[in-house]
Amino acid sequence: MKIACLAGDGIGPEIMAEALKVLDVLAIEGLELGHADVGGTAYHKHGHPLPPETLALCQASDAVLFGAVGDPTCDALERHLRPEQAILGLRQALTLFANLRPATMFAGLEDLSALRPEVARQIDLLIVRELNGDVYFGEKAIRTLPDGRRQGYDFMSYAEDEVRRIAHVAFRAAQGRKKTLCSVDKANVLETSQLWRDVVIEVSAEYPDVALSHMYVDNAAMQLVRNPGQFDVVVTGNLFGDILSDQASMCVGSIGLLASASLGEKQTQYGTLGLYEPIHGSAPDIAGQGKANPMAMILSLAMLLRHSLGLEAQAARVEAAVAQALADGIKGADLGGSHGTAAIGDAVASRL
Amino acid sequence: MKIACLAGDGIGPEIMAEALKVLDVLAIEGLELGHADVGGTAYHKHGHPLPPETLALCQASDAVLFGAVGDPTCDALERHLRPEQAILGLRQALTLFANLRPATMFAGLEDLSALRPEVARQIDLLIVRELNGDVYFGEKAIRTLPDGRRQGYDFMSYAEDEVRRIAHVAFRAAQGRKKTLCSVDKANVLETSQLWRDVVIEVSAEYPDVALSHMYVDNAAMQLVRNPGQFDVVVTGNLFGDILSDQASMCVGSIGLLASASLGEKQTQYGTLGLYEPIHGSAPDIAGQGKANPMAMILSLAMLLRHSLGLEAQAARVEAAVAQALADGIKGADLGGSHGTAAIGDAVASRL
Ligand SMILES: CC(C)[C@H](C(=O)O)[C@@H](O)C(=O)O
Ligand SMILES: CC(C)[C@H](C(=O)O)[C@@H](O)C(=O)O
Repeated sequence: MKIACLAGDGIGPEIMAEALKVLDVLAIEGLELGHADVGGTAYHKHGHPLPPETLALCQASDAVLFGAVGDPTCDALERHLRPEQAILGLRQALTLFANLRPATMFAGLEDLSALRPEVARQIDLLIVRELNGDVYFGEKAIRTLPDGRRQGYDFMSYAEDEVRRIAHVAFRAAQGRKKTLCSVDKANVLETSQLWRDVVIEVSAEYPDVALSHMYVDNAAMQLVRNPGQFDVVVTGNLFGDILSDQASMCVGSIGLLASASLGEKQTQYGTLGLYEPIHGSAPDIAGQGKANPMAMILSLAMLLRHSLGLEAQAARVEAAVAQALADGIKGADLGGSHGTAAIGDAVASRL
Repeated sequence: MKIACLAGDGIGPEIMAEALKVLDVLAIEGLELGHADVGGTAYHKHGHPLPPETLALCQASDAVLFGAVGDPTCDALERHLRPEQAILGLRQALTLFANLRPATMFAGLEDLSALRPEVARQIDLLIVRELNGDVYFGEKAIRTLPDGRRQGYDFMSYAEDEVRRIAHVAFRAAQGRKKTLCSVDKANVLETSQLWRDVVIEVSAEYPDVALSHMYVDNAAMQLVRNPGQFDVVVTGNLFGDILSDQASMCVGSIGLLASASLGEKQTQYGTLGLYEPIHGSAPDIAGQGKANPMAMILSLAMLLRHSLGLEAQAARVEAAVAQALADGIKGADLGGSHGTAAIGDAVASRL
């Protein structure tokens, strides 16, 4: 078993260190770790945010543990050299088409949400975002029209097989939860969405035990404010998923606790190839100060153990240790506490 | 002066009646009203949601007062016959490119928001949404690819003049408010957004008194939950504006109170040609029961008086009457009150 560890920029290296501390305590036999540069760090050292060695390491691994990318010193670079391109590049090169973003309220942390506690308390949803298609990877450019005007354009599309494979992931996830799936689109305006909806309905025939509903994206953005507790599993395209999953995370209030998995098609000996990262960013403002909360990173490791290495028991152990640490009052500054990065990592490790 | 009144579907006719009651009390000299069918109602009577007579009436008017469209009995129709197409058709035919959606917390109604009162209380923003371009009106279809797979696609684009005219509207709106403008895009992924950002920056040179910032749409969706009070004027494209303006409305909690204006390029003798509608929908579940809150419709009329007829004093009178009615405890069921449609209309009319 091999994990590629890409710490990245900003607080990435600090939170990665704590995840590796936890992994160390688990002492998983036959586990090999590789390390490589990514993001602004990689650009500064190698001239590219996703150097070929980094990609090769990921391709030779069963899973990628990813810190964060984002570096203000790269803001003026051409787009293809900016840190975020590394994550887009990895999604494409590894065919990571299914982004799983659970958003669940942690008991006792309701006060961190901007939503009223009685609304926030109900949040327990999973957003399944398609990650390889849509307007993200279509033909795009800024061009000059024959009449001399500049125009920016992006081609949005989904083909039926792209919708089908993400729909299956979502239906299966719903089977493992409350058996309700809400597919979000904009079928009243977009043909891409109409095809999306048609295919999701076709796939639903294979999952008679899951209750499927459809919602327009504008309404979904409203319902996520009004009553996020109404959602169980939500499946949507790349662009809408980008927006709604961030909105849902913020509804929980504690983004320092939220993990994500990006799964591919490739099955390894142990599970599904995937990339795991906290949903928060590289937080350059607090980088290097030992202040970042590593819990989302540690919970991303738990997802990795579950989905890519087939180590469900170990994953549950890690999650329980984080929950216990929280219950014991171990909180980072983002949760209103005063524990530093290493102290939180130690606290989780000692509770395994 | 001529107003085209399109009551539409569901609760449309009921709330329109109350707006007209208010207009009647104002007794504006030389004002002519026309009425026409739109939406599902128009489809059932004339076979099309936007019949030529309706469009002709609008084109011959200084403003359009619009109730709501949406009719579940039309769900199975081909897309171009569905009620919502009427509103898309009007936006295009009348070149209504600037959608103004104010979202402001009404004092004393903080408890209706799902956000904590101290967060909700801060909301006082205006979303300026471009309404004639983007992925809404580009080439689109479902086609069969050479390899036999079905694909849905939509062409997303903005040309510089389209961005420039909406940017001017937004900067001018900011000048009349707190002089801060946040432009929302996804320039880290979309070339359409990159052109948008470039042009907004170019236009900003003409408005040195307005502080311009840029935000990615995923972050904007988060910030609208975390701290909506940070926004003054937000300008964004058609698709992101659809999502964010609905999200912002729901943050206020009382969508039965929120009005919107869709302004065109055409200047009439009195003001700017525009269409005015409440942001809530046709609410077929309560249609015909006298339960709908007409306040958003009445406030849409106020916007019409201001922007299209140049009657600022009358607009302010209507808004003050609504505020007074609310302060006097006149509330629809949506605000936790028990007043019916006509009673609310009467209450506002009597306070003019
Ligand atoms: C950095 C950016 C390209 C990326 C996206 O839009 O997918 C990010 O927002 C995310 O959600 O992972
Ligand atoms: C009905 C629909 C086509 C429309 C839109 O997407 O613009 C609506 O959601 C709106 O915001 O006015």
